Amino acid sequence: MNLSNILNTLDTSSERHLDELCQWLKIPSVSSDSMHRSDVADAAKWVAEKLKKAGMATEILPTDGHPLVIAETPAVPGAPVALVYGHYDVQPAEPLADWISGAFEPTIRDGNLYARGATDDKGQVLTHIQSVCDWLATGEPLPLQIKFLIEGEEEVGSENLERLLPGLSDRLACDCVVISDSSQYAKDKPAITYGLRGIATYELEIRGPSQDLHSGSFGGAVMNPAIALCHLLSSIVDSKGRIQIEGYYDDVQELSAAERTAWSNLAHSDEAFAKEIGVDALFGEEGFTTNERRWGRPTFDINGLTSGHQGEGVKTIIPAFASAKISFRLVPNQDPKKLTKALQAHIDKHLPTGVKVTLSPDHGAAGMAADPQSRYAEAASRAIESAFGTPPVLIREGGSIPIVSRFQDVLQCDCLLLGWGLSDDKPHSPNEKFCVQDYHRGIKASAMLWAELGSLRKGV
Amino acid sequence: MNLSNILNTLDTSSERHLDELCQWLKIPSVSSDSMHRSDVADAAKWVAEKLKKAGMATEILPTDGHPLVIAETPAVPGAPVALVYGHYDVQPAEPLADWISGAFEPTIRDGNLYARGATDDKGQVLTHIQSVCDWLATGEPLPLQIKFLIEGEEEVGSENLERLLPGLSDRLACDCVVISDSSQYAKDKPAITYGLRGIATYELEIRGPSQDLHSGSFGGAVMNPAIALCHLLSSIVDSKGRIQIEGYYDDVQELSAAERTAWSNLAHSDEAFAKEIGVDALFGEEGFTTNERRWGRPTFDINGLTSGHQGEGVKTIIPAFASAKISFRLVPNQDPKKLTKALQAHIDKHLPTGVKVTLSPDHGAAGMAADPQSRYAEAASRAIESAFGTPPVLIREGGSIPIVSRFQDVLQCDCLLLGWGLSDDKPHSPNEKFCVQDYHRGIKASAMLWAELGSLRKGV
Repeated sequence: MNLSNILNTLDTSSERHLDELCQWLKIPSVSSDSMHRSDVADAAKWVAEKLKKAGMATEILPTDGHPLVIAETPAVPGAPVALVYGHYDVQPAEPLADWISGAFEPTIRDGNLYARGATDDKGQVLTHIQSVCDWLATGEPLPLQIKFLIEGEEEVGSENLERLLPGLSDRLACDCVVISDSSQYAKDKPAITYGLRGIATYELEIRGPSQDLHSGSFGGAVMNPAIALCHLLSSIVDSKGRIQIEGYYDDVQELSAAERTAWSNLAHSDEAFAKEIGVDALFGEEGFTTNERRWGRPTFDINGLTSGHQGEGVKTIIPAFASAKISFRLVPNQDPKKLTKALQAHIDKHLPTGVKVTLSPDHGAAGMAADPQSRYAEAASRAIESAFGTPPVLIREGGSIPIVSRFQDVLQCDCLLLGWGLSDDKPHSPNEKFCVQDYHRGIKASAMLWAELGSLRKGV
Repeated sequence: MNLSNILNTLDTSSERHLDELCQWLKIPSVSSDSMHRSDVADAAKWVAEKLKKAGMATEILPTDGHPLVIAETPAVPGAPVALVYGHYDVQPAEPLADWISGAFEPTIRDGNLYARGATDDKGQVLTHIQSVCDWLATGEPLPLQIKFLIEGEEEVGSENLERLLPGLSDRLACDCVVISDSSQYAKDKPAITYGLRGIATYELEIRGPSQDLHSGSFGGAVMNPAIALCHLLSSIVDSKGRIQIEGYYDDVQELSAAERTAWSNLAHSDEAFAKEIGVDALFGEEGFTTNERRWGRPTFDINGLTSGHQGEGVKTIIPAFASAKISFRLVPNQDPKKLTKALQAHIDKHLPTGVKVTLSPDHGAAGMAADPQSRYAEAASRAIESAFGTPPVLIREGGSIPIVSRFQDVLQCDCLLLGWGLSDDKPHSPNEKFCVQDYHRGIKASAMLWAELGSLRKGV
């Protein structure tokens, strides 16, 4: 394997790499919008074509929704198999007026490429595609088999992929999934994310009288559903942020002393963090730092409240109903199904009089924990250090990528989350961006990763 | 005074009475809608014309909004003065599709007249106008002076009348205000309402981060404004319906043993009441009956809740803000201004960390208590018994008519609330109605009332 030859090819191709990313970004593949159905299909075709031209066995696999793009390089006996997962669909670009340059007109300003999908996820997944395609173009054999699974419904919940995954388990069999759909810890501080929180979301509805009542004629004699909702929601979490559902903390994987020490050594300022989000003071569970609260502790949040009169002025009614959207972030080892039972039991126990309460679970996913000291993680660490000039920090993230724990379950594989983005990339907002330098460093790190992983023997 | 001659005139005029009410109801005098400005003016002209034609000194008094119609019969030395208050404006008729017959096409079905304003308040106030006009038409002198104050902004808060009232105090000077803008206790159970609750309304807003945050990346590390709102609202009232603001019950006028006994003798079924409003069980302050809770106890209600994601599906955010519309019904002797101070102190004491709380008072009005055994009330009772064939019951109502306590304060007068409506008249909803028989009985009771009040000597 002549790695310097490969790295040299990458260096001399950087203009084409950027040009190709721009081509892909120009396709408005908004998966949630049926008006963009053919654009989504075009984005799938674009990437399938790219993979196929490089010589990979490639298929566009239809689903009930948008298709999966699956490709693979030849098998390499004795070496591990890597599966690159990413997505070619993007979030809606609205509000369009807030974009400085067009959402689907990729534009470079101050070293950043601005476009919807630049960081989430076209730019990031393309780093791995470029590294593999260019490697193959040199004529050098890859030191391991690499498979690609690029889906078109990540932004709308990956339901079709989740359903099809068990049936694809042979075809996608791998030792390690590689995903670049997250962020570095900070500018020039690349990270390996070895944990994600799970999630459980619900809608809680409280119905009282059959219609809004006059609060003068009826007030005092009937339970107000909005008051019942506030009491019920307040019973779920105390004023110190501690969740009161029986058994909620029983399965929580406690933070190890080692990772608490490691995280405490990460550059972090509570003051700067509070300023960034626009609050005077932070708030969270006692006895934990901000990063511990975000990455390693379970939460309860109210995502929305709706009841009664919401317009201007006064309408003195007892609302017929009140509802809340609520969600929990779970840490590894907490089971969303178990939570649903415990939450229902909590509600039954705290049921107010004279109203009907309905809890509707929406979706749930377990958290993910990988071993940050695994040989795959260590290989990734070396690759990233080579490309970025600094070793990656080991972090967890507070968000959830439900498909990741499904990969672990179904494919029984390890998982590497290698984020090339930055926390201010605004992946779901106007003016989404991706740092051009990080795109190129990501491609280089990816190539180094194949070399590092290829040097490992399978199953050792 | 030849009362039988007058009653006879009323009897023979019933067709015209109904016809005139229909004329008035056809004018869509929706005070809140600027598109109906000239209709509102026409409704004022219609009633002014009616009063003037009967020989009364009548004026249409402009205000910054819709005009007041003021009229009076000649002074009668030694006799008390009665002031009839009512309003010619109506609520919007929307949703129009829900009306069986047109909102401004008065239609009789099953003995009821259906139209916007039928009961609230054109039909009810017209009973007093008809009785006085017909009395004057007989040539008999009225045994007391009667003044009319018919406004066009009751449905939008009576602000101009409130402002002008002190300057009109000489002109409107009276011993007793007569208002028919409420309901009988039940069908064929006329009532004298001797108490109303006051009101205080507020908007409560809690602001957290400067924009909605991703609940994965930030959840657990920042106060969720919607949770803070639920905690704060829950702190205002306990799960038994007891309000927790310090001193809230200090000024509450307790119910007398006599009125509790009287109310307990009123026909009432909790079961039927619950069924009517569509709940399985009633709820309220311990130790009080349903009517006591509605009429004689102060309350706290949430009228609306707004925060975060309210559309379909899931959006896992920490909302930037959460707000509530809240209101209190006050009993006589509670001061809305004092409540505002106590509520602000309560909020300051229960202030959550990391969010900003703003309390904005909207409007406040004291409750009203009249003496149900006053000579005016007893005169009204005799008049109603003559017209309805059954003596009225003595009740309070849970709603608030802010102008009533202003009349008491500014004019230093007694107050008679004589409701001819029924609780299912739907005054602010589609298919508003007024029982035709009650319209005619109301006119008769009104005439008898003038005879009864006229027999009292002023100030005795």
